[in-house]
Amino acid sequence: MSVNYSAIRALTFDVFGTVVDWRGSIIRESRKFGASRGLRLDWAAFADAWRAGYRPAMDRVRRGEMPWLHIDRLHRMILDEVLARFGATGVAEDDREQLNQVWHRLRPWPDAVRGLRRLKQKFIIATLSNGNVSLLTDMAKHSALPWDCILSAELFHHYKPDPETYLGAAALLGARPEQTMMVAAHEDDLKAARAVGLRTAFVRRPREHGRASGYDLPHDSSFDVIADDFVDLAEKMGA
Amino acid sequence: MSVNYSAIRALTFDVFGTVVDWRGSIIRESRKFGASRGLRLDWAAFADAWRAGYRPAMDRVRRGEMPWLHIDRLHRMILDEVLARFGATGVAEDDREQLNQVWHRLRPWPDAVRGLRRLKQKFIIATLSNGNVSLLTDMAKHSALPWDCILSAELFHHYKPDPETYLGAAALLGARPEQTMMVAAHEDDLKAARAVGLRTAFVRRPREHGRASGYDLPHDSSFDVIADDFVDLAEKMGA
Repeated sequence: MSVNYSAIRALTFDVFGTVVDWRGSIIRESRKFGASRGLRLDWAAFADAWRAGYRPAMDRVRRGEMPWLHIDRLHRMILDEVLARFGATGVAEDDREQLNQVWHRLRPWPDAVRGLRRLKQKFIIATLSNGNVSLLTDMAKHSALPWDCILSAELFHHYKPDPETYLGAAALLGARPEQTMMVAAHEDDLKAARAVGLRTAFVRRPREHGRASGYDLPHDSSFDVIADDFVDLAEKMGA
Repeated sequence: MSVNYSAIRALTFDVFGTVVDWRGSIIRESRKFGASRGLRLDWAAFADAWRAGYRPAMDRVRRGEMPWLHIDRLHRMILDEVLARFGATGVAEDDREQLNQVWHRLRPWPDAVRGLRRLKQKFIIATLSNGNVSLLTDMAKHSALPWDCILSAELFHHYKPDPETYLGAAALLGARPEQTMMVAAHEDDLKAARAVGLRTAFVRRPREHGRASGYDLPHDSSFDVIADDFVDLAEKMGA
């Protein structure tokens, strides 16, 4: 391995998909919400549509077509569009706000907390997510995620994969880019981090999109670490 | 009591003096540093001089006479001045940087961790300190401070008592000002927080400056809560 792990000070984690199972959580919570209000939808399709709106909305902010809006506001805009598309126009304002909060309660993958606890013994562990600070803070509290520090795109008014996010996170943690390792289940996130000097760890999350997508190794095999889950990551990082 | 505690979402904590005993920690660590290098000073006077430089340095940043510099940089500038004043000019650059890091390892008051653990069950607990993010993160790791979120003046490029810090912290935590309570052992901090709508809790820290200063109730007795320590604060907040 080319990485000197003892030179690494901090691990920064993508959250949606990497730490938490957004899809399973949204389906479960939305279905419960619907049941309590007599609303019947295809909740898996609903979850996928809600998530699918996220990247285009962020990209509009990134291109300057919209002012800075944090993810709670983007999620809410997308929710309104998706409810309309699914014909669920009768959902009241308060209910929409309440449903929008499900993103604050996403549940971690089964290995996540155990792996993070081990990694925390050796490294600073921080989020580096496009989710806003209060979303990430609520989620950590809800699911006992043992972060040392909550970092978010919101602090930089730049969304990943803008370089300001990776460099800003390293600077706030008092680390040089090469002392910082980005951990994600998404290659574009890692490539952007690597382009500004961070170390990279790819974690396989074959069920992020619901179907078991088989043995999803990354197309790019030159990340510093490739791990099956967070416990495997801890193992490979000597933690 | 006039506060409806169930309406409070987050507690934001001053750190130096309120959560940690900066003076005792600095004296202890500086003395150890000195012993290992054959340097003899009056370490209590040294700690007091180092700390005394902090407010004037910050105020120069607040008035725009210096660009934004985070506390690690201000502490280092002051350290150089103080070493010169104490006649300790022979301390090497590396040693100065190492000594400057003692602020990352300040130890909590004996009741702090226990009180925070209780408060965390009921409220979001976050730092709101003039210390930089990496200082606060290292300190939390070093002393097992169970913060939900690390917030710092560094995120706003404004030092307390500028209103941007209190309002910025509440916004990041997804709370309205009146849903946020500032906790501090310093009246000026609480008055500034209250002026922009936050709730306030004064915690007595009679030994912050080393001498037992007796029964130091605040001059202003109209803070929402006045507590003897963090366990008493938890008690009074129903946590």
